[in-house]
Amino acid sequence: MEYSILKDIKSPTDIKKLNKNELSVLCDEIRNCIIETVSKNGGHLASNLGSVELTVALHRVFNSPEDAIIFDVGHQCYTHKLLTGRFDKFASLRTEGGISGFMRPSESEHDPFITGHSSNSISAAFGIFKAKKLLGQKGTAVAVIGDGAMTGGMAYEALNNAGSSKGNFIVILNDNEMSISENVGSLARSLTKMRNKPRYHKFKNAIAKILMGIPFIGKYLKHVISVLKDAFKTVIYKKNIFTSLGFDYLGPVDGHNISQMEDLFKIAYESNEPSLIHVVTTKGKGYSLAEEFPKNYHGVSPFDICEGCAVNKADTFSSIAGKTLCKLAETDSKICAITAAMTEGTGLSEFQEKFPERFFDVGIAEQHAVTFSAGLSKQGAKPFFVVYSSFLQRAYDQLVHDVATEGLPLRLLIDRAGIVGEDGETHQGVFDISFLTSVPKIQIYSPATHKELEYRIEFAAQNDNNVAIRYPRGAECENINFDFKSDYNFFKSRNDTLVISYGRLFFEACKAYEKQKNFDVLKLNKIFPLEDKLITEILNYKRIFIFEETEKSGGVGEHLSALLHENGFKGEFKIRAINNKFVPSMTVGRALALNGLDSASMIKFINGVDNGR
Amino acid sequence: MEYSILKDIKSPTDIKKLNKNELSVLCDEIRNCIIETVSKNGGHLASNLGSVELTVALHRVFNSPEDAIIFDVGHQCYTHKLLTGRFDKFASLRTEGGISGFMRPSESEHDPFITGHSSNSISAAFGIFKAKKLLGQKGTAVAVIGDGAMTGGMAYEALNNAGSSKGNFIVILNDNEMSISENVGSLARSLTKMRNKPRYHKFKNAIAKILMGIPFIGKYLKHVISVLKDAFKTVIYKKNIFTSLGFDYLGPVDGHNISQMEDLFKIAYESNEPSLIHVVTTKGKGYSLAEEFPKNYHGVSPFDICEGCAVNKADTFSSIAGKTLCKLAETDSKICAITAAMTEGTGLSEFQEKFPERFFDVGIAEQHAVTFSAGLSKQGAKPFFVVYSSFLQRAYDQLVHDVATEGLPLRLLIDRAGIVGEDGETHQGVFDISFLTSVPKIQIYSPATHKELEYRIEFAAQNDNNVAIRYPRGAECENINFDFKSDYNFFKSRNDTLVISYGRLFFEACKAYEKQKNFDVLKLNKIFPLEDKLITEILNYKRIFIFEETEKSGGVGEHLSALLHENGFKGEFKIRAINNKFVPSMTVGRALALNGLDSASMIKFINGVDNGR
Repeated sequence: MEYSILKDIKSPTDIKKLNKNELSVLCDEIRNCIIETVSKNGGHLASNLGSVELTVALHRVFNSPEDAIIFDVGHQCYTHKLLTGRFDKFASLRTEGGISGFMRPSESEHDPFITGHSSNSISAAFGIFKAKKLLGQKGTAVAVIGDGAMTGGMAYEALNNAGSSKGNFIVILNDNEMSISENVGSLARSLTKMRNKPRYHKFKNAIAKILMGIPFIGKYLKHVISVLKDAFKTVIYKKNIFTSLGFDYLGPVDGHNISQMEDLFKIAYESNEPSLIHVVTTKGKGYSLAEEFPKNYHGVSPFDICEGCAVNKADTFSSIAGKTLCKLAETDSKICAITAAMTEGTGLSEFQEKFPERFFDVGIAEQHAVTFSAGLSKQGAKPFFVVYSSFLQRAYDQLVHDVATEGLPLRLLIDRAGIVGEDGETHQGVFDISFLTSVPKIQIYSPATHKELEYRIEFAAQNDNNVAIRYPRGAECENINFDFKSDYNFFKSRNDTLVISYGRLFFEACKAYEKQKNFDVLKLNKIFPLEDKLITEILNYKRIFIFEETEKSGGVGEHLSALLHENGFKGEFKIRAINNKFVPSMTVGRALALNGLDSASMIKFINGVDNGR
Repeated sequence: MEYSILKDIKSPTDIKKLNKNELSVLCDEIRNCIIETVSKNGGHLASNLGSVELTVALHRVFNSPEDAIIFDVGHQCYTHKLLTGRFDKFASLRTEGGISGFMRPSESEHDPFITGHSSNSISAAFGIFKAKKLLGQKGTAVAVIGDGAMTGGMAYEALNNAGSSKGNFIVILNDNEMSISENVGSLARSLTKMRNKPRYHKFKNAIAKILMGIPFIGKYLKHVISVLKDAFKTVIYKKNIFTSLGFDYLGPVDGHNISQMEDLFKIAYESNEPSLIHVVTTKGKGYSLAEEFPKNYHGVSPFDICEGCAVNKADTFSSIAGKTLCKLAETDSKICAITAAMTEGTGLSEFQEKFPERFFDVGIAEQHAVTFSAGLSKQGAKPFFVVYSSFLQRAYDQLVHDVATEGLPLRLLIDRAGIVGEDGETHQGVFDISFLTSVPKIQIYSPATHKELEYRIEFAAQNDNNVAIRYPRGAECENINFDFKSDYNFFKSRNDTLVISYGRLFFEACKAYEKQKNFDVLKLNKIFPLEDKLITEILNYKRIFIFEETEKSGGVGEHLSALLHENGFKGEFKIRAINNKFVPSMTVGRALALNGLDSASMIKFINGVDNGR
């Protein structure tokens, strides 16, 4: 495709001049560019295809970056990137040094705030909005948030705060009737009801004639609106959850009709009250396969555009987790599975189908998920909360306060632990060890193979502990045999140097060993707490190295360091881990190498060639 | 007072038999007992006085513990404790080994879930409710939650999840028109509107006659309700935020009229839909001083019942923080103060008064508070988020994802860091160091004196860093002079043993030194990260001890241990901190002693008499 219009869009100003036909061509080009790029690089497809016209309409009415526009999560920010000077670099989407798949302030002044985790956009936009007023800066702030992200408690906290303010703060609800999977909960039901009341069209019929009859509509719009405010309210402003929270509600409006959206955006921009505009879009719009199977086209790996995404049949840690829970649930009626809107990603589709009564998708609500699980657990059920490492960060307080204080058992299955690859800094699972190890009495395991994961889940089902089992994205690297039922495994060859690792880094340690054979290897199965017996066994080594795919601060190495000191270890002890930084988008292999965690770096570190911290 | 009725209430069953007059006397006795006990022991007064009749009505309709009743936060659970067999022990409220000021499952089967942090009750109750259905257990679950706690995002996540379920799950909204301070945000405005529509009375007029005309009302109630469901809905079920979230809305009802509340509770109990009952209460009810000044009687220290609470004029760390921010704000118009519904507790009342445009009480919404602050910061404002250590746990993800990823400056003032005393395990500020130290590039300070705190706040205002300043509850222990402008202070006497401490434990270390004089003392001003220069300076000690008023796992000691290993330290290094446990209610002094952190324990530890971990 030629991208005849898109190639000339250097900034949002350029799309303000386009006529209706040109806009239509532009939207086609954008869709084409997104499909082409994502089919090569992988990424978020269906949600981005659904928000093309919405984003065009936003940039025609608002003036980015003076008006700050924040796309929640960032699953819908590709069009925004294409319209804000990043078309030329767009082929580098989600690659090392390339365009991020999420909003990144370090990438462009048009990305006012970082996104990646759900439901933070309203808070951030409202902060920016208040600072602008306070510091006398121009422009407003707009949060664009999906109906899925709207189930996160943080969004509600922000609406409650912002709804009682003055000024033209704006929230755009991009309602595509699903988050990643079908949307759940009562908000989704309410939105369905609202969608089915075509208030916008009523509004059009009642008001449009008057507006259209006035010349120089733009110039007089402000006055007209002020005069017609009450009429507007009667017709289009009905009572719902958003009006309860202090917002003027505008919509629903067809999210693929640019001019209709522009009308409402202008009303909101001219208002002196916070507005919420309800925009209804179709996920996957314009790519028939994605429209038909939006779940399969949410986040995708590279695929053939004509044939569509191949269904991945190979096992991964996620699928093993799901299958193991299904197997256990057959014979143990107490087992439940909880997800925070991540049924497919966490491998729970089969569980959902087979055990609907014991499956709980609670929405994008990790806080609630943990405490709800604790409630289940309190009565004797056996809830497994299956969650991505980086999203579990939302529930730290609940793990401490609601679970640990009274010693309730909880089973956490932590997916995407460690480096995740292309999703980059906001999605790396490199903090869970640091925050979990401060939760009193918790036990943490980090399986390296599918079999080990399966065993650990079975073990967790049988024992009432507060236990976290963390495993990486994707599949096992190798399928070698070792005693995964114990807390740790020694691979000794009578050396005075010991290399400790766990999870998939164990295989890197093995590779390094194959080349060097000048150290012993210790694989931790249980990574926290470390037992006294283990400490006693390693005290006599002269040199101990630990390699960890996690933040160094609060990692296993630091805890081990303290235990070594306590037990009078006098040798050398060094930790290699991710050191006080975020890891951007790149392949897992590259990230491990750059952080000194692949087998080659291990050898250098052990041999003292590389002492970098 | 004689407590003629109260003394015979051994379980909730006993109040089911009482007649109207006896109930009235009982409520008087309960109020009296609460006022008397809190005036001696301190505690939460106004909220507990407001919920006496509500709690009585609950226990008359529901059957605890079969029906699980969870009082959110626990600021309103004293009546519940008095009615569930704890009257005899109530004089021990908030003392070591005594009755906790919050719900504690370890204390009674009538406390089904731990409370202390806000807004978790609906999640926990819904988990218990679903488990009961799943496991075939009897009874239902009831969450009692204040209008303040209802501003927490977690409550909304739970409503969204529970609202789409079947069965008689029940939420009681105890609306006393304020949380701890006046309630803020748009939800509060909505509630005001709802309060002013006396729907309950309309309901009474329309329906009551029919109901009352039927004999054996209880027996037939279920049938009658099913028949009248639609009529009910028309009259009492109006559209509001709770109905949007899938709940039947019942109310508003007078929270001091037991029989009216009982009517609604029964309707909810018999329903097959989740219900929210809006109960309007008066904070401080029955104690005129508390009714008039509810803010002053929220959480109180011991006081004289006739004279009321003395206004504490003495400086505390909190008041110094507030005063310093006011002073800085006079000359720096970028400075803002943010609180999550803790204006008084964090010393911000004066700031609120003097700089209303730059003061933001965002509700009980720590997640939003952090990201909102990050938004302010993004535009160049200088937000200080002032928050209790234990409540900051709610915002861990926001600190990592929204603040640190793009390196935004944020100023955290962390009040109630360390042991807090009588509030017990849910309120101890002993986790912040563990979770904050995993946030890349953060700097943490822990002042020991008022002057040091003042200096650190001034320093933070001048420098754009992501900085956390943590200080304990109450006032400085001593006001000694040292160089608080540096990162650390050595007090050397040419010993080969070094004792490291920070915050108020520095004074314990000094006391220990005065007695022993056989060690050097190092006071950390900046506790994280520790600078290379400091490590170099301490490498030659033979023995190093660090004492910390925080969880050991992830504390400063463990980070220091790793640095010592990295730098080839060969001496002895030992950490004394709170070890893998929660600290229950007791005085600060007792808690320090029991955890080996007072000067006497320090001496024992250093001299090798006590090696307990």
